[in-house]
Amino acid sequence: MNDAAKPESRRITPVILSGGAGTRLWPLSRKARPKQMLALTGAGTMLATTAARVADPDRFAPPIVVAGAEQADEVEQQLAAAGTPAGKLIVEPEGRNTAPAIALAALNAGEDALLLVMPSDHLIGDAEGFLEAVAAAAPLAEAGWLVTFGVKPSRAETGYGYIRQGRQIAPGAHAAERFVEKPDAATAAVYLAEGGYHWNAGIFLFRAGAYLDALAAHAPDIAAGVREAMAKAETTGSRIAPDAHLFGGVRSQSIDHTVMEHAARVAVVPVDMDWSDVGSWQALHEVSARDESGNAVWGEALVLDSANSLVRSDGPLVVAIGVEGVAIVATADAVLVVPLKDAQRMHEAVALLRERRDPRL
Amino acid sequence: MNDAAKPESRRITPVILSGGAGTRLWPLSRKARPKQMLALTGAGTMLATTAARVADPDRFAPPIVVAGAEQADEVEQQLAAAGTPAGKLIVEPEGRNTAPAIALAALNAGEDALLLVMPSDHLIGDAEGFLEAVAAAAPLAEAGWLVTFGVKPSRAETGYGYIRQGRQIAPGAHAAERFVEKPDAATAAVYLAEGGYHWNAGIFLFRAGAYLDALAAHAPDIAAGVREAMAKAETTGSRIAPDAHLFGGVRSQSIDHTVMEHAARVAVVPVDMDWSDVGSWQALHEVSARDESGNAVWGEALVLDSANSLVRSDGPLVVAIGVEGVAIVATADAVLVVPLKDAQRMHEAVALLRERRDPRL
Repeated sequence: MNDAAKPESRRITPVILSGGAGTRLWPLSRKARPKQMLALTGAGTMLATTAARVADPDRFAPPIVVAGAEQADEVEQQLAAAGTPAGKLIVEPEGRNTAPAIALAALNAGEDALLLVMPSDHLIGDAEGFLEAVAAAAPLAEAGWLVTFGVKPSRAETGYGYIRQGRQIAPGAHAAERFVEKPDAATAAVYLAEGGYHWNAGIFLFRAGAYLDALAAHAPDIAAGVREAMAKAETTGSRIAPDAHLFGGVRSQSIDHTVMEHAARVAVVPVDMDWSDVGSWQALHEVSARDESGNAVWGEALVLDSANSLVRSDGPLVVAIGVEGVAIVATADAVLVVPLKDAQRMHEAVALLRERRDPRL
Repeated sequence: MNDAAKPESRRITPVILSGGAGTRLWPLSRKARPKQMLALTGAGTMLATTAARVADPDRFAPPIVVAGAEQADEVEQQLAAAGTPAGKLIVEPEGRNTAPAIALAALNAGEDALLLVMPSDHLIGDAEGFLEAVAAAAPLAEAGWLVTFGVKPSRAETGYGYIRQGRQIAPGAHAAERFVEKPDAATAAVYLAEGGYHWNAGIFLFRAGAYLDALAAHAPDIAAGVREAMAKAETTGSRIAPDAHLFGGVRSQSIDHTVMEHAARVAVVPVDMDWSDVGSWQALHEVSARDESGNAVWGEALVLDSANSLVRSDGPLVVAIGVEGVAIVATADAVLVVPLKDAQRMHEAVALLRERRDPRL
């Protein structure tokens, strides 16, 4: 790619996906107050921080936010409070995963819009590095590539999908040769040793039209279903509500499975940006400020003779004495204690709580 | 001692000391709701269980309860609810330790009364064993001995005082040769190996007059001060309130230091009664019902893949995953996490909370 081929630089439209309702950070994250609504590491919520990252009006249009109906009010309030209001808030009557959610935004933005699709609950330590990668990827996206941003693996993580890079297509950009599902530990170790593999961070840049075309090619039912739901959408101010019945009939599928793994012109732009999906208490401990004993302490807590632990209260006074490598998380109605190394096992507890329809989930 | 010397058996007056305000079981026990007010192991509170233990009207008169002013209402309610109302409730304007507290009861009961003095917050698994020891000790007490009940040490405990037994003075009864303060670990091990040492459980049987005489001999200021405070006591129904100013001027001293270590005729009656002062979370874990993994779980808790732990909630849902040998205690406004082996270190946290005048103490 040479400079002559580069189109006039124009504003990018951020698409912030705020539909997640993960429970890996239970009891802090709840169905009604998912991770992106929380201030986990800094002053702002993850949603507000995500919006602030792409708030420069010279480079970005106001964001399109896609959120669940239950969270719509809170999303609007958080973004308004942070001074980064959503340009459009698309309210999903129910979550159908990322492929339909992004299609909603793409249809609303118009075929020619350049979309930067981002989860609302990831942490990016080096925002400048991220923005530089976005700027570098823009010409590829303008040229019709579906660009993914690949994070350099720092460990043999089994919790993420990986992207195998292929031939170089521009400086710092490769064709994506293969998307691989969350690998087992041995496979992840091989990827790490081999190189050329990147973590799939779920951040994408493409023309709306390119995405919609690829979706129509590889999942025509989803493309058609979302288009019908949007044709009958109700608009109230900046809120857009797709038809609930029609959207409810759309298959629930991720963009990775539906589009990225199959489309022809998929690029990966590696980016070193101090990224974390903060997908567990262990991950939060790693990205948090810690004292000299390695403790990350938040809220009203008295931590004595303890090390390498995460102690967080959003309510009661927490007293920890002589603990090591443990997460202690307290809210007004629930308390979690789990060794950080076992933080992935949260899902077992959550499954049990779900089974008994616990209201504190 | 022969049968001819045995006086007619008569009713014993239990004296239940409910002035303690320990914080070793914080955050469950609070200044305003000390250990004796809590149901720690069974259905009833420790106070109610203590009263029930000596409620047989053939053997015992209604108890005299000595309690702090702050707890008086609650004491009355708990005992009434349990069907074992106090005969007299002596309300201490402020705590002055056991020597004055027992003197209050002794003056109220009258010189000739046989008093069984008991802390209100100890656990006795074998109540029959205890009552048999009391019956066996009664003739000694009638004869003027100050009888202590000695618990057979089961480990080299450093948290209790010890009583060294001397010559035998009756079947199953020895003169107390020496009272020793809480020993260090090495000394405690020697006591255990040597034998003839008993834990001082703070349970006593004596004639009121014998105690008052000994107190007058060894701490005449305390004896006189308490007598003056009782002379000006206000009586309302079954409540007796010693004069606050006069009682406040009395030295704060334990019965052990003031009387038992110095008096001439002190006896120790060993008793095997499955006793615990439940003085730490570890002690509570030991005396609690446990599941097959050794977990003592109380209240709303989900305990997964954990062992030998105490998990207790009086409020929030507690989820523990993969913990071992830990106490997790949650109330509506405070949470404690501490390894059971470090449970003695509670006082460090409590000291810090006291320093900052934390209202949750």
